[in-house]
Parts: sequence; structure tokens; C-alpha cells
Amino acid sequence: MKTIAIDAMGGENAPKAIIDAVNKAKKKMTNTKFILFGNEDEIFKFLKKEEMGQQIEVVNTTEVITDSDEPVKAIRRKKDSSMVVAARYVKEKKADALLSLGNTGALLACGIFIVGRIKGVDRPGLMPTMPSEKGDQGFNIIDVGANAQSKPEYLIQWAEMANFYAEKIRNVKNPKVALLNNGAESDKGDPLHQQAYEMLAKTDLNFIGNIEGNEVMTGKADVIVTDGFTGNAALKSIEGMASVLLHMLKDSLLNNGLKTKIGAALAKPALNSLKKRFDTARHGGAVLLGIDAPVVKTHGRSDERPIYYTLLQIDKMLDQHLVEILRERFSKSN
Amino acid sequence: MKTIAIDAMGGENAPKAIIDAVNKAKKKMTNTKFILFGNEDEIFKFLKKEEMGQQIEVVNTTEVITDSDEPVKAIRRKKDSSMVVAARYVKEKKADALLSLGNTGALLACGIFIVGRIKGVDRPGLMPTMPSEKGDQGFNIIDVGANAQSKPEYLIQWAEMANFYAEKIRNVKNPKVALLNNGAESDKGDPLHQQAYEMLAKTDLNFIGNIEGNEVMTGKADVIVTDGFTGNAALKSIEGMASVLLHMLKDSLLNNGLKTKIGAALAKPALNSLKKRFDTARHGGAVLLGIDAPVVKTHGRSDERPIYYTLLQIDKMLDQHLVEILRERFSKSN
Repeated sequence: MKTIAIDAMGGENAPKAIIDAVNKAKKKMTNTKFILFGNEDEIFKFLKKEEMGQQIEVVNTTEVITDSDEPVKAIRRKKDSSMVVAARYVKEKKADALLSLGNTGALLACGIFIVGRIKGVDRPGLMPTMPSEKGDQGFNIIDVGANAQSKPEYLIQWAEMANFYAEKIRNVKNPKVALLNNGAESDKGDPLHQQAYEMLAKTDLNFIGNIEGNEVMTGKADVIVTDGFTGNAALKSIEGMASVLLHMLKDSLLNNGLKTKIGAALAKPALNSLKKRFDTARHGGAVLLGIDAPVVKTHGRSDERPIYYTLLQIDKMLDQHLVEILRERFSKSN
Repeated sequence: MKTIAIDAMGGENAPKAIIDAVNKAKKKMTNTKFILFGNEDEIFKFLKKEEMGQQIEVVNTTEVITDSDEPVKAIRRKKDSSMVVAARYVKEKKADALLSLGNTGALLACGIFIVGRIKGVDRPGLMPTMPSEKGDQGFNIIDVGANAQSKPEYLIQWAEMANFYAEKIRNVKNPKVALLNNGAESDKGDPLHQQAYEMLAKTDLNFIGNIEGNEVMTGKADVIVTDGFTGNAALKSIEGMASVLLHMLKDSLLNNGLKTKIGAALAKPALNSLKKRFDTARHGGAVLLGIDAPVVKTHGRSDERPIYYTLLQIDKMLDQHLVEILRERFSKSN
């Protein structure tokens, strides 16, 4: 049986949304156990004892890491927090994977300092799966902020790990791997990106060269490699732009008189289908690749649905033995 | 009389769109002369001799720098190209400012190597004015790609120059200046951004601290400072996301049956008003700040309208003596 350790106290809708997602997921993931870490009084407000069965366990914890906590300090001081205790269960092999909606920095710290890195991986990278213009398939982008400073070697390792993820979890054949850079030509960028380009070209990856920011969302690449600082700025800029545009669109449609309102009502199914095509939930959460177990962050604002998909994603990572594959790969090269 | 040197051969719609814009602008800018550089046979296909009057002059050139030319080589080899000859006119004080829709890298090279830097400015930065969610006012972001590698001192100079631009050209009182970083706290980022933060906090600027990618388009800051690599990725990601979303929106509205089509037709004025609120043309082109004359790049795909606004923008930069103010400022500090 697989076991997922779940920080039940992280995120804006905790613990209810998390419990709802687990109750839904357990029916599909019949060979998986879910351990919920958190304040048991809070948890049992939403979890009925008769729902627990063999698949759900609750571990009472007395502290919570908040978004304003300084990550490394928090995991040292709040030793009985839901996130830290969940991470310890993974470290001690009492669970196979870790899910949290809480403080991203603290989850990174839990991954690195409690669960630990895969041997041979220099630095873990944070990797979401994003929807693209092309639709269903989406793409992976790594690193989007686990590292403020990067070396070319990190980028190569991230590319290799994300390539395995795209193949095994998203079923992409021979994933197209690209480097986010400030121009198409091979000599573009600063020394970090020039060197990363050269090194990527020498790997066995299906490296298609540089792509620029404006191509990120087109689906041209299945895996986009970037340093954590640039990746963070690019991803957040994309999210910000999408949010501003959709907000302005809504505002335009609602505040331009009756005729527009009627038009908006008639066009609503189309607007909803647009939303569906741009579904960020379906691919699950952002994976901290390079950690010695699946460690996944779902957005703090998530309701039940993205959490449910993240549970499916983790289940697939366990079924496909992704971490074992990465362990094997990096034990050879280092 | 002010004189603007115009590369009439750059961009997809050259020379027609450029000539149309000049013909429109000359009526408003009655104290300005426009010198068009390019193949005169081409130019006189669209420019009637009787339209020229006192305000338009044509200088015949025999070469054109294309987008695929390597910038520095191109400006060395194509000495009789429209862009290079126009830049030389500015250097020789036969013109006060330079406008091109051509190869951005070559225009940067013309600015740096032919026109020259303002004394005391280490590196020029490329700075567009972008529309924001807040509407009319927009914001400046610098550098968006003139420099692949940056030092903290460059960022401080860019912030100061952009601040003058926001004050004098966009009439923003006490512009709010922010640093694009990977978190809100003052210690966020790599050493480059940590140091830039410290230095910005010590200036007289109205420095409001770090902003993240998702806040770029909100209008929270009037001036956003960033290193050229990150700025390039963020800006292009924003443009790419906007283009993908609008494309998908259009597709959804047109390909979802008759009811949706009717709805879209009814809502069209609202959708157009959205487009207007997000008008990237009205603020003109991207300025190469730090060059010893206004050097402005307008998008290669521009039709008449953005070029017209760029001419107004350049006129205002000349009227407000922006370059003289920067010269004065940087002669003191260095």
C-alpha cells in the first residue's frame, strides 16, 4: 500500500478542502493510505469517523507554519507543526510522499533538510505543470523559485529530471526540452545561460534550443529549463497578466450596459470553455524535483478540485517509481 | 527647430506606415523637422513631393539592416544603412533624436557606439512604457534587454533615469519606484538584487521596495527596475500570455456556435473598450535611456498609429530637455 503524508493545516481552505479532496480521492486510489497531520479537533469538524476506514489516519499536531514564518527558522522551531511532522514521517519511511498547501519556502526547507535530496542531485528545483495554448498536454517549467542563484550544472540536472517526469507522468514521448533565454541564437544570454545551452546540447535530451518569454505559453516546448530567479519572475508575470486580463474582461462585460450583459450571458459557455482549456488544476501541484520522495506543493488558495488532482498526480509518481528512476540515474553520473 | 532622424526602412510596414505617421505628426508638431533616411525610390512611392514642405527632408541611403543581421557587425559593415546614417546625423548634431522600427540590437549598438552614452552613465537601459490594470497612466520598466548581465550600480542609474522620465514625460508626481524580485522582503533575491535593494533604499527616490512578477501589471509601481535578463523574460512572458489569452478568447467566441457569435457581437463594444484600456501604442516606443540623445525603438509590427505616438513622445522628450537633465544629474555624481 502507498502512503501519502498530508499537511492538513496549510492553505486558505484548510482543513475542509483537503479532507473533501481526500474523501473523493480514496475512492479512486483504493490502494493508497492518507495520513492527515494537523489539529485533530479541527480535522474532526469535517472528517466523520465513519469515513476513515482503512485508508485515512489522523496524526494530531499542535503547531502550524504560517505564510509569514521565515522558512528555515520555522521548521527548526515549530517541530510539532503539521508540515514538519508530515515530512518526518516521509523521512522515517512511514509515508512515501508529502503534500502541502502551506508556506512554499518552508516546504522546500522540509524537503531539503528533513526528507533529503536524491544522492547526486545538487539542488532540487520547483516544477509546476502549466496549461499551454495547445491545450491538454501542458508543459513543465523548472526551476520557478526554489533557488535564487543557479549554476549551469543545476539547470542540466533539472532538465533531466523534468524530462523523466514528462515521459513517465505526463506520457510525453521524447519531450522537447528548451532553455528560457533572451534570444533564439545559441550564443544568447549571460554566461550562465550560454554555458547551460552548451551543456544541454551535449546531453541525450531532445534539446530544441532557446525559447523566449513570449513562447513559454505556446506549447512549443514540453519542458522549459530556467534559473530559479528568472523562472520565478516569468511564471509570476504570466499568472499576473492572466489575472489582470480576465479581471478586466469580466469588468468590461459587466459594466458596459444591458446589451453587453446579454451578450456576455449568451457567450458564457464559450468563456467557460476558455477557462477549461486554461485549467491549471488538472495537472496537480508543483513538484520539488530532486528530493528523495515526491514532495508536492498545491496553491494555497486551492479548493477541493486542485487538491484532488494533486493526490492523483502523487499516486502516479509513486506507481511509476519516479524517484527510484531518478535515484538510479543520478547514482550513475556522480 | 527640433529635428528627428527617422530610419524609414525599419519594420514590417516600412516605409509607408512611417511616412503616414510623419504626415500626421507634422501637423501637430509644427516646430519639428523630420528627416527620413532610406531608399528614396521606395520613400517617394508613398511621400508626395508637395507634402514635404519645410518639415520633411529625405536622405537617400543604399543599405538596410535586417532583423537577422548580427547587430555590432551590421553597424560596422553597413555604413550606408538607413539606421547607421540616421544615427550619424544625431552624433553630428544635424538631428536631435533617433527613431527606428528596425533590429533592436543594432539600434542599441547605434546608440552606444555612434551616438554615445551620457557621461557618467555606465550602461544604457531599454525602457518601454506599459499600460497597467489601473488604466491610463501605465508604468515604466527598465532594463528589458539591453544588458544580458547587470551590476547593482546599473540598476540604480536606470531607476534614477526612469524616475526623471516618469516625472517629466508622463507627469507622474513622486513616482513610486520598485525592484522586481522573487519575494517581498528586503533580503530576497540573489546578491545582485539584494545589493540593488540596499542601494535603492539609500537614494532620494520614492522606493517602495520589492515587487514580484504577478504585481508588474497592477500599476502598483510607476517605475519598475530589473536586470536586463529578468526584465526581458518577464516582459516577453507578459506579452506572450496576453497574446495567447486574447487569441483563445477570440477563438472561443467565434467557434462555439451561433448563440455565442451573437453574444460576442453584442459584447463587442465592451471587448473593444478592453482593448483600448490595454493600449500599448499610446505611450510610444521603448526608450534607450542613458544615450546622449533620445533614441527610441517602436515595435517592428507597428502601423501608423504607434509610430505617430512615438513621434509625439520624442517631441516631448526634446521639449522637456530630458537628456540635458540626465546629463546634468550624472555629471554631478561621477
